[in-house]
Amino acid sequence: MEVRNRYVATRRHIEGAPTEADFEVREETARWSPDSGEVLVRNLYLSIDPYQLNRMKRSSASHLAVDGILPGQRIAAYAAGEVVASASPEYAAGDVVAGVLGWEDYTLFRPSPAVLMSKVDASGGFPLSHHISVLGTSGMTAYGGLFEVGKPARGEKVFVSAASGSVGSLAGQFAKLAGCYVVGCAGTKAKVDLLKDKLGFDDAFNYKEEPDLKSALKRCFPDGIDIYFENVGGEMLEAALANMNPYGRVALSGVISEYTGAGRRAVPDLLEVIYKRITIRGFFAWDFLPRFAEFNATIGEWIRQGKVQVLEDVSDGLESVPSAFAALFSGQNVGKKLVKLA
Amino acid sequence: MEVRNRYVATRRHIEGAPTEADFEVREETARWSPDSGEVLVRNLYLSIDPYQLNRMKRSSASHLAVDGILPGQRIAAYAAGEVVASASPEYAAGDVVAGVLGWEDYTLFRPSPAVLMSKVDASGGFPLSHHISVLGTSGMTAYGGLFEVGKPARGEKVFVSAASGSVGSLAGQFAKLAGCYVVGCAGTKAKVDLLKDKLGFDDAFNYKEEPDLKSALKRCFPDGIDIYFENVGGEMLEAALANMNPYGRVALSGVISEYTGAGRRAVPDLLEVIYKRITIRGFFAWDFLPRFAEFNATIGEWIRQGKVQVLEDVSDGLESVPSAFAALFSGQNVGKKLVKLA
Repeated sequence: MEVRNRYVATRRHIEGAPTEADFEVREETARWSPDSGEVLVRNLYLSIDPYQLNRMKRSSASHLAVDGILPGQRIAAYAAGEVVASASPEYAAGDVVAGVLGWEDYTLFRPSPAVLMSKVDASGGFPLSHHISVLGTSGMTAYGGLFEVGKPARGEKVFVSAASGSVGSLAGQFAKLAGCYVVGCAGTKAKVDLLKDKLGFDDAFNYKEEPDLKSALKRCFPDGIDIYFENVGGEMLEAALANMNPYGRVALSGVISEYTGAGRRAVPDLLEVIYKRITIRGFFAWDFLPRFAEFNATIGEWIRQGKVQVLEDVSDGLESVPSAFAALFSGQNVGKKLVKLA
Repeated sequence: MEVRNRYVATRRHIEGAPTEADFEVREETARWSPDSGEVLVRNLYLSIDPYQLNRMKRSSASHLAVDGILPGQRIAAYAAGEVVASASPEYAAGDVVAGVLGWEDYTLFRPSPAVLMSKVDASGGFPLSHHISVLGTSGMTAYGGLFEVGKPARGEKVFVSAASGSVGSLAGQFAKLAGCYVVGCAGTKAKVDLLKDKLGFDDAFNYKEEPDLKSALKRCFPDGIDIYFENVGGEMLEAALANMNPYGRVALSGVISEYTGAGRRAVPDLLEVIYKRITIRGFFAWDFLPRFAEFNATIGEWIRQGKVQVLEDVSDGLESVPSAFAALFSGQNVGKKLVKLA
């Protein structure tokens, strides 16, 4: 079986903020045969995540954990799709799967424990898109980062940056469910209103309108911050450290402002870290893979009960991937950015 | 009872590297009476520690954890001394004590659970100086930082900066006893030789002779660093992060290069921290106070068995405190800096 496969590729390594012109849509012929051991998936929803930018750099600490992306090559990405043909006893045509597929129309994969892939259980009744957002890596990052790294206790004060983003919007809601006082920051008034009015944050502020981030956090947290769920880096991390309480925890999920090199890097006051005995811990979703099912059972129940609002920002068509991806770095998305394929 | 008490005081807040001229020796009359509830101690050994500089600043995160030092005032410091007169049933004249006393000839204290003070058990047979170095806060910092924060496993690779200092020299030896591969850095050839020849470090380098710290660490740790026992900050932290292994731990004990503002602050690559899932944790000796006796039992036994070498660098007389303290910041001490009073 042969299919024409369109895929998004980078034209070059990307070192700064990405633009649409950094990408192109290429075509190839994907070949599947019954004796290949492979599974052919037609992709339906693609996950568009900021961390992919680090993979696109020539050199990055990211390459230690995830393969770098070479110009002209296919780009592996979390996605959901439908099995079109299977040469594996584990999958059958018509199965719906979510896992590591790619920014492309079709993906071939060979089942193995090393391949992150799961069959979507339709009995849960969730939209397919949820399986690559709140029930995918975004939910896992938010849940694992908050509960395993942040370790919130009831009544603690939690600050979430990039709080209207895919991970931040969930981390903040999860922190509320843990009985915490939660403040988020975002970059527009509409996002700030969303955090307070729809997502139940106790407070929120527009960082672009704050002349001094330390003062803004002091105002929002007169009793200090216990947990900082960090998505942005730079000056925001410095300001959060200055406002943290003793034994505070920084769950270092991402530093999007530092990915593009546009913002300056954080220069943390390490005396704050020492004298407050702060813990800063880096992590990412896959650290929690062994507990994926357990996390999703809890998150799914919260969604059913209306306790968690899921924000998804969907673009249409493979050709929209470059603009959807670039938009992440100018703050144009709200919640999880996805691309729906026809 | 009245005694003439000489004490060291700062003349002003100190923001940069300290010099002798920043200090003066003042005199007062200390008054003790039998109904005061107080204990009068004649100090015998004073501990000279870099962290005191942070207390001398006008503003510092240090003030959150330890009282700031005001110009002209007495300076509380870890010390050992002999009880001269006691109005407390817990102490008697002739008792030898170690704990928070001061940079002065005599200190009055009122026993309470909030006052860090212990009677020295002479049966251990250790020199009195040991009770404010290896069996005092330096030992507690090294032991707690290595074992509780660093959590070394046998065979792991440990890097110690300022490795010939009071804490570093112990942390490195403790890491060897934990079965680790240990490399230290210091600022002179003599110190480097000391680390390798006397303290049993597997390797050591003179950071002042390395044009590129990242390369130096790459050379010393071809298989990467698992634990960084951090005493200096700045560029050294950046270089260590670049050479750390996944799930590495930074035990953030001190950042002496950043205390004086002379060196630039660390600008850590947070992508390293995220993608390697590094934990950076600040701590200080008093976090481990509940386990003081347990730690000291182990450390004391190691000393008796000749497994730990204790480096003490002793100056004589109260008037030598300012120069002894200033010397810490130009790397002139080897091991624990102490001042012995007449």
